[in-house]
Amino acid sequence: MVEEKENVSANGEQVSKKGAKKAAKAAKKAEQKAESAAAASAGNDGEAGDVADHAQGRYGLSEMIQSKDKRSERIFVTVPELVNHVDKGLVWVRGRVHTSRAKGKQCFLILRQQSSTIQCILAVNDIISKQMVKFTGNIPKESIIDIQAKPVSVPNKIESCTEQTVELCVEQVFVISQAKPQLPLQIEDASRPENPDDAEGLNIRVNQDTRLDNRVLDLRTPANQAIFRLEAGVCRLFRDILTEKGFTEIHTPKIISAASEGGANVFTVSYFKDSAYLAQSPQLYKQMAIAADFDKVFTVGAVFRAEDSNTHRHLTEFVGLDLEMAFKYHYHEVLHTIGNTFTAIFKGLRDQYSREIEAVGQQYKVEPFKFLEPPLILQFAEGVAMLRGAGVETGDEEDLSTPNEKLLGRLVKAKYDTDFYILDKFPLAIRPFYTMPDPNNPIYSNSYDMFMRGEEILSGAQRIHDPEYLIERAKHHGIDTTKIAAYIESFRYGCPPHAGGGIGMERVVMLYLGLDNIRKTSMFPRDPKRLTP
Amino acid sequence: MVEEKENVSANGEQVSKKGAKKAAKAAKKAEQKAESAAAASAGNDGEAGDVADHAQGRYGLSEMIQSKDKRSERIFVTVPELVNHVDKGLVWVRGRVHTSRAKGKQCFLILRQQSSTIQCILAVNDIISKQMVKFTGNIPKESIIDIQAKPVSVPNKIESCTEQTVELCVEQVFVISQAKPQLPLQIEDASRPENPDDAEGLNIRVNQDTRLDNRVLDLRTPANQAIFRLEAGVCRLFRDILTEKGFTEIHTPKIISAASEGGANVFTVSYFKDSAYLAQSPQLYKQMAIAADFDKVFTVGAVFRAEDSNTHRHLTEFVGLDLEMAFKYHYHEVLHTIGNTFTAIFKGLRDQYSREIEAVGQQYKVEPFKFLEPPLILQFAEGVAMLRGAGVETGDEEDLSTPNEKLLGRLVKAKYDTDFYILDKFPLAIRPFYTMPDPNNPIYSNSYDMFMRGEEILSGAQRIHDPEYLIERAKHHGIDTTKIAAYIESFRYGCPPHAGGGIGMERVVMLYLGLDNIRKTSMFPRDPKRLTP
Repeated sequence: MVEEKENVSANGEQVSKKGAKKAAKAAKKAEQKAESAAAASAGNDGEAGDVADHAQGRYGLSEMIQSKDKRSERIFVTVPELVNHVDKGLVWVRGRVHTSRAKGKQCFLILRQQSSTIQCILAVNDIISKQMVKFTGNIPKESIIDIQAKPVSVPNKIESCTEQTVELCVEQVFVISQAKPQLPLQIEDASRPENPDDAEGLNIRVNQDTRLDNRVLDLRTPANQAIFRLEAGVCRLFRDILTEKGFTEIHTPKIISAASEGGANVFTVSYFKDSAYLAQSPQLYKQMAIAADFDKVFTVGAVFRAEDSNTHRHLTEFVGLDLEMAFKYHYHEVLHTIGNTFTAIFKGLRDQYSREIEAVGQQYKVEPFKFLEPPLILQFAEGVAMLRGAGVETGDEEDLSTPNEKLLGRLVKAKYDTDFYILDKFPLAIRPFYTMPDPNNPIYSNSYDMFMRGEEILSGAQRIHDPEYLIERAKHHGIDTTKIAAYIESFRYGCPPHAGGGIGMERVVMLYLGLDNIRKTSMFPRDPKRLTP
Repeated sequence: MVEEKENVSANGEQVSKKGAKKAAKAAKKAEQKAESAAAASAGNDGEAGDVADHAQGRYGLSEMIQSKDKRSERIFVTVPELVNHVDKGLVWVRGRVHTSRAKGKQCFLILRQQSSTIQCILAVNDIISKQMVKFTGNIPKESIIDIQAKPVSVPNKIESCTEQTVELCVEQVFVISQAKPQLPLQIEDASRPENPDDAEGLNIRVNQDTRLDNRVLDLRTPANQAIFRLEAGVCRLFRDILTEKGFTEIHTPKIISAASEGGANVFTVSYFKDSAYLAQSPQLYKQMAIAADFDKVFTVGAVFRAEDSNTHRHLTEFVGLDLEMAFKYHYHEVLHTIGNTFTAIFKGLRDQYSREIEAVGQQYKVEPFKFLEPPLILQFAEGVAMLRGAGVETGDEEDLSTPNEKLLGRLVKAKYDTDFYILDKFPLAIRPFYTMPDPNNPIYSNSYDMFMRGEEILSGAQRIHDPEYLIERAKHHGIDTTKIAAYIESFRYGCPPHAGGGIGMERVVMLYLGLDNIRKTSMFPRDPKRLTP
């Protein structure tokens, strides 16, 4: 079969004798492989060998790209750009075979590039042979190909592609990386809208585990391409907005010597001849950065929870967006900063990621995310009153159960028309030892949670910056203060009052988009039952 | 003694009986504590009690700031802004006591805010009492105080402060957070220039372990304040430059099921009833993201090396700046992208962080970092030739030893006047199994390192994207391919040729600034002997 013309011999460089021998062997092997694979693609009827092929050299399996030459003469065009190249002659495009179908003298191929698709046509003529059409029709889906083609306008919209007004008249096709003919999941199935009204039979779904087991394929769907681009946007907006407000990014260690936030739910690491733990949050370190005069800090990084929770919203490893900030007199200085940061993130997503939000919406039907400016702040006691008004029995110092949290979200949405709100002044009893008690009412604390679509995405508080009071509160919680001596010590050399919070990144993306499972927003999720891929 | 006036009673809120009792108790305790501490500060002569104090209410220990009220009337001014407030009346400033010295009827205090310092004066007059001067002179260094003062011009430059033309005439002083009187290290000592020409006696140094053991204090030096702000800049520039080039940020798991890059130097984690490992790099995951059509990706995150290396440049946990990129025909498309990214980072640091670079330079004398545009690219074989020219014996397929690496850096600097260069085409034998061999010379590979001031800061390569060839190379390296089945599998569904690299963030900052130890650029470093703080 046919290969692209390559300077197989070493291009001008001196090659050692041993080297030359090896290289020759490798080249021969590559050739043999290409041939046998191409023969397989061409079908079983031996046709390719029988009939003279006037398209020879215009199609085939490319040699493995090993950076032998630069081919600087080839200018590649991206699929969305093709509309600007109509009737301007030949262009090169690299993409995946989304679908390919040869019928008689024609082959229709849909080429996909990330989320963009375009129709390509080959028809037997003076430069395209029957063999070439057949070869192209047999390229396995998901293979990567280089095509040279003429972009032309089409009279009728091509509904099945993102590029609806242009198609490509192909003149050359080379397979760059061939996919297995049998895929563990079909991109079309994995991309199918989750519309509960669909007739059951037409509604082939790919289940979560199949998706995650074959994540490299699953991630190619338009919704997943969009989700992870938007996720990158959440991180970027978080950092840019805080940097603008004068925050400094820091990095905190993940391997720590003591399970500082209580011993539960912590992974153990063997550390040379000793053992250590994986940090459940950067809490103590971001506070130390405040004591070290960094004033306002944030950090983005992995946090670990050895919690055997198999729910839609728990992961054992996730990305924490953490911040901490010194304030002058009242932790609401910080609470408002965090609230405004969320508002700015929501606006940034709405304004800069509308295409991604739309792409996700085409698979998962979701109401747009609503928020108020400035954000709604309710007292915990008000939230309890709303729940009681809805007939729920809950104690004054009782934490919100997951169902109550969701119910409260619905009540707030109904009353205030917002998917984001802040609940301030949580009961002291249910918060960590380092939480500052409310000076005005001892059952409460200077702490807050923030919610998106009725689920918690941030937990934060004013922290105790007085070492003696911190010891008192730690002891009250039954914590061995010798194990957090370095932490307590860091407040003995002058520390400003400060507050902060930790945000679960994957939750923010999940809830912003209204998705039902956090595994949809973690590229390679980790849970108690999943450590691969 | 005196406290700021506070509404100690609950401000209008209903307090439960039990709560009110507790609150009253807490308030009394705070008061007692404040009094006894203030009395201690006032000295042993009982003077404060003996003489009427006309400054009462203008100084003292503040109650712990528990967000009781907002004091929204107080407008705080930062130290660098004070120059704009000269002769415009009273302002509030919060800062640390850098030094304080009372002598007779006067007290000179230097107030520090991050890296900025300003002189403050109190002299006995109709509003300042002798007791107030004494109290202020006795505030322990590093305590945080709020002062109300008039900014005034000074006739002679104040050489000992960063604000040399303004001083503050203090009218009120309140201690917000009091430091221990005995500090484990003095900020002045920790900030002292490392000038080898200094007379020995005057040159009190603080050793590395004392610094790291008391990192919260050590980080307050102007050099450290600058180092970690510049480090945040390196990360920001890296991300912004790549985002601009069309890269997408991803997040990769740190907990992995198999020690995929060979079993050595990997930390083991207990994972529920199983065991797992800490990722030595995001290598396999960023490649999977390429196979999953993300085209160009980067990730910033913790990487772990269980290597018992106690050197100036090894950490067991550090921040990796990783990137991976699909290319069309030659890995130099990627090599140039990375090279240009470095150039842009160096320019960004030079242009946006000149103040920080200067601050570091005041403690550690270092030559400015030089770079060429475009960056210098040498072949590995050329590097070997340069070393041999300098009398070093080294083999064609031998890796660069650390001394040879440094020597080559000096040779390159002498010849090309650059502190940054790229060494391309490393011997195949010394690179990981997934490295693409050089098609033109079998002893080499399509791989590269990048160096700053003669030390490696990036290692990268074209990766093998053909699954069969990858298996062949893995077997050649004696790797059990069943353990990396998911990784190999990800290339079976079409994968574009790609290359990338991993950068050690702390090394970049260390070498850009010309520092001598990587522990200076990791906020809370981890090495085989250090797990705290």
